[in-house]
Amino acid sequence: MQQQTPPPNLPFLKMHGLGNDFVIIDSRGRDAVVTPDLAKAIGDRHCGVGFDQLAEIRSSEAADIDLDFWNSDGSRAGACGNATRCVGRLMLDELGRDEVTIRTERGILIARDMGDEVSVNMGHPQLMWDEVPLSHPVDTEFLPLEGEPVAVGMGNPHAVFFVEDIKAVDVPGWGRKVEFDPLFPQRTNVEFAEIRSRDEIRMRVWERGTGITLACGSGACATAVAASLRGLTDKKVRMEVDGGWLTLEWRDDGVWMTGPTQLVFKAEFDTSFLERV
Amino acid sequence: MQQQTPPPNLPFLKMHGLGNDFVIIDSRGRDAVVTPDLAKAIGDRHCGVGFDQLAEIRSSEAADIDLDFWNSDGSRAGACGNATRCVGRLMLDELGRDEVTIRTERGILIARDMGDEVSVNMGHPQLMWDEVPLSHPVDTEFLPLEGEPVAVGMGNPHAVFFVEDIKAVDVPGWGRKVEFDPLFPQRTNVEFAEIRSRDEIRMRVWERGTGITLACGSGACATAVAASLRGLTDKKVRMEVDGGWLTLEWRDDGVWMTGPTQLVFKAEFDTSFLERV
Repeated sequence: MQQQTPPPNLPFLKMHGLGNDFVIIDSRGRDAVVTPDLAKAIGDRHCGVGFDQLAEIRSSEAADIDLDFWNSDGSRAGACGNATRCVGRLMLDELGRDEVTIRTERGILIARDMGDEVSVNMGHPQLMWDEVPLSHPVDTEFLPLEGEPVAVGMGNPHAVFFVEDIKAVDVPGWGRKVEFDPLFPQRTNVEFAEIRSRDEIRMRVWERGTGITLACGSGACATAVAASLRGLTDKKVRMEVDGGWLTLEWRDDGVWMTGPTQLVFKAEFDTSFLERV
Repeated sequence: MQQQTPPPNLPFLKMHGLGNDFVIIDSRGRDAVVTPDLAKAIGDRHCGVGFDQLAEIRSSEAADIDLDFWNSDGSRAGACGNATRCVGRLMLDELGRDEVTIRTERGILIARDMGDEVSVNMGHPQLMWDEVPLSHPVDTEFLPLEGEPVAVGMGNPHAVFFVEDIKAVDVPGWGRKVEFDPLFPQRTNVEFAEIRSRDEIRMRVWERGTGITLACGSGACATAVAASLRGLTDKKVRMEVDGGWLTLEWRDDGVWMTGPTQLVFKAEFDTSFLERV
């Protein structure tokens, strides 16, 4: 993959989905511009722009667009559902269609216009121990850990705990402990879910390597799948996360996540200081 | 002061001085647009833009510009030296002069072009107990506190401690304790300074209401004044703060602070979602 020097004034958009925030750079029709150093520079919330993830849009032969994800430490990130919804909004508006295709590391995702909201098919859950992945064969529906969470892979590993009262849960303490349990060779995200009814869940998430976040799309999907597997909810649920509300539906073609997206600002990043970074 | 509805796409600049970061809105030739709600919305680092302070440029009859400061909690802020340097850079470039005048709550400040850097006259230090302010008359040069700090007002109160080894200082622990000492009726910023030579200081700062910051302009001025009063340094010093290097000089006309400024990006803020904030 070729990379060019970033243009002197690099246009970007800032968007968020339930407070999960993204810088979006459109590199269609040119070589990719994002490098680990540029991602780090833009990712700095004081000296740069700041983001949970950076998404670079690329020309695609297999879908409407390709999408590459970066973390603010300069590493590559896997697919991010909320970012895919935000970029989906842009593409739906640009192309004037009610459905667009977006190729990510997880394959080709479909984003669908739902009026004020956007739905993304997050793909099929991975329910076998070596897919999550776990370190050895165990029953993924009742993990041999205190609280017996459900293990679900959604491109990344999740351990979903069902709790009586989410307000009483020490999310950082419990989350950090489970994240590093040897059962998870790639560590794990940790979700805590209080079942409010057959179609409503309150969920809080501990993201591996990050901590508590306002909204983790794959974690929301994993939680809906786990609740359905256990027979606690129907296959379609409304879910309240710290950043707001999502709708999740586990269908034959994958787990669909629906929620709001928000454009915050359009900008041009001054790259002239990067030589000094 | 009249206020209008913010325009649908509100242009702004993001700049920083030593990691102390600012959103700058130019409202010359129109009514002010910043309200407490707008400052809060823009100040949110995930759902908005994020800043340490917001500076709104206003038309001025007394100086080249007026400058109003806001905090991200929607409250008004006093003068901020690093923001004044950043806005000074913009005005110096726009007017093509080597000196501009900026009216703030602290009076009219002068910003001077120093090539790559900008100097701002931060005004005279306030050295009387009731100016800092302190709660009762004491010797401001040797406060009756453990460590005997120097009290200096620079538009806001400062307590400057001289320490042997800055790496050994528990800045949050000590800072929080002093911030709330009853000697300071408006609380206080707390500086810890290690004297490296007659012209070099390493300084770390605890800002009241905020905590450790990368660079506090008024704190740097207060520290240079305190070191000079105690006879530890000359009146001109280089100072290393967490965010980089500043030069401070206590002259007959006030304390001059010199340092770098950086434009990060130009943007248009989408205000259409504000009704939903």
